[in-house]
Amino acid sequence: MTKQFHDHSLDTATLDQLFNEARTYNDWLDKDVSEAQIHQIYDLLKMAPTSANMQPGRFVWVRSEDEKHTLAEFASDGNKDKIKAAPATVIIGYDIDFHEQLPWLFPHADAKSWFEGDEAGRKEGAFRNSALQGAYLIMAARSIGLDCGPMSGVDLDKVTEHFFADQPRVKADWICSVGYGDPESIFERSPRPDFGTFNTIV
Amino acid sequence: MTKQFHDHSLDTATLDQLFNEARTYNDWLDKDVSEAQIHQIYDLLKMAPTSANMQPGRFVWVRSEDEKHTLAEFASDGNKDKIKAAPATVIIGYDIDFHEQLPWLFPHADAKSWFEGDEAGRKEGAFRNSALQGAYLIMAARSIGLDCGPMSGVDLDKVTEHFFADQPRVKADWICSVGYGDPESIFERSPRPDFGTFNTIV
Repeated sequence: MTKQFHDHSLDTATLDQLFNEARTYNDWLDKDVSEAQIHQIYDLLKMAPTSANMQPGRFVWVRSEDEKHTLAEFASDGNKDKIKAAPATVIIGYDIDFHEQLPWLFPHADAKSWFEGDEAGRKEGAFRNSALQGAYLIMAARSIGLDCGPMSGVDLDKVTEHFFADQPRVKADWICSVGYGDPESIFERSPRPDFGTFNTIV
Repeated sequence: MTKQFHDHSLDTATLDQLFNEARTYNDWLDKDVSEAQIHQIYDLLKMAPTSANMQPGRFVWVRSEDEKHTLAEFASDGNKDKIKAAPATVIIGYDIDFHEQLPWLFPHADAKSWFEGDEAGRKEGAFRNSALQGAYLIMAARSIGLDCGPMSGVDLDKVTEHFFADQPRVKADWICSVGYGDPESIFERSPRPDFGTFNTIV
């Protein structure tokens, strides 16, 4: 039987850790993130939903000094030092041919056939659903007591060419540093909208 | 001082509620979701990061019988009954002209100027970041003890035309039912990949 949690709200401290007090950091404490922690993050994020369980995200976790420097070279000026200082920065890419994996990822139906011959549709689905997976990644990292620094200021073509050289159907989409945020490195929280600004109930 | 949670992992029950035991439901118990709960979800999701705090997501929460029936008409056959049964289904749209809001959303810099005259870039940023916000929405709903049923099988042009008629620069992107999942309505969990299948550490 599936476990359910109906009307069970997480406590304030947990909501603070996930949402209300978590922040995007611009600099990082000198403290490593282990391979075991990276596995923990992925093992959580992969449980969250994607359309037809397509799991289109492809993740390259950049930890070595050499590869960090290469990634920093491809980044905008404001992001170079952040990448060098972070213990790890993950590149979130998506596989335009994710449908090749659907026979084992979605065994309930012939889902591969839904996407065959529709590269534009696949690209849209892969882009949307890998973005979801990147958001799950941020929540998963926060869940195990790590901070995140998502960034899109990077030359995606160069990142794709270098880091997905062995996966020609994968395109890099954005990057996210993961580590222990330096509390000195954050700005004042940007304003958040009231419900009515961007929401309607009909 | 910012609160930090370094190396504080959420407990097993919480990780179950957010990731490991949470499921996508196909049918819903006959139990309402209140406006207060919808506000709670938005008040959490809006705290999570978007690029330059662009907050491009525009949300229409469909709760009335009439509007549920209209939304169901626009959905694929497999999704019509789910939408009618769910107490609420939210339409996740994105505003291509989100940059008009940046003077108040991102007061640290003249971020509006970064996006002016680049509609293709804005569309990409809005699409990516509203998908992130939809994923935060799922995690926020789970955080307060609700279940989700994300769907992309819907005629987005018709949804846009009807539900964002008053917001001509907004496009609908996907939809997500929110409520109390019927445990009888779920399939066996689809397989999840091992770390090495879609991840590399360099």
